[in-house]
Amino acid sequence: MERLSEEKLFNQGKNLSDNEASALLHKLPEWEILTKNGIQQLERVYKFKNFNDALIFTNRVGAIAEEADHHPTLITEWGRCSVTWWTHNLGGLQRNDFIMAAKTDQLYDY
Amino acid sequence: MERLSEEKLFNQGKNLSDNEASALLHKLPEWEILTKNGIQQLERVYKFKNFNDALIFTNRVGAIAEEADHHPTLITEWGRCSVTWWTHNLGGLQRNDFIMAAKTDQLYDY
Repeated sequence: MERLSEEKLFNQGKNLSDNEASALLHKLPEWEILTKNGIQQLERVYKFKNFNDALIFTNRVGAIAEEADHHPTLITEWGRCSVTWWTHNLGGLQRNDFIMAAKTDQLYDY
Repeated sequence: MERLSEEKLFNQGKNLSDNEASALLHKLPEWEILTKNGIQQLERVYKFKNFNDALIFTNRVGAIAEEADHHPTLITEWGRCSVTWWTHNLGGLQRNDFIMAAKTDQLYDY
């Protein structure tokens, strides 16, 4: 596995162990694992020069989310877009979330 | 002032008193005033039947924000979009925020 962004999504049916998550996070240096309401999530904040660029990026991420049928939380504000991936039905992080994070990074060309 | 959504924005240069904010909130029954990091904000969560409808709504709100040059925080998720208005440079609520909230309600036809 060289590039996470080239992997296809598949439903593994179980959350990653902390060691597995740490190893994958190492490939995504801009992302961090946060725990919200007891659920581990993968989050990155992207910076932009205005509101509209942030909204354009939100739409780009929305498009890959729809394509993968895997949906993040997107927080759009003036100059920033925060993206959070996690696996809803299992309440935690799977490999798929890291793959989506890597694909999200590829959409950022600002 | 019959309909907030028909008012034009203007910069008043001062935050509303609690009484003024309560009177305006009365016209927007779906909204609530929250205090985040010491700053009063006006928030409503809109429900949708999927992710894409939430994203379409996010774009509608983004368009009126750009037009007014007054920008909210938009949280887009599967089945919901949370909209938060407040006046950034004064760190609180002005009449403009309530006008934008009323205009946001007019965009919701689900």
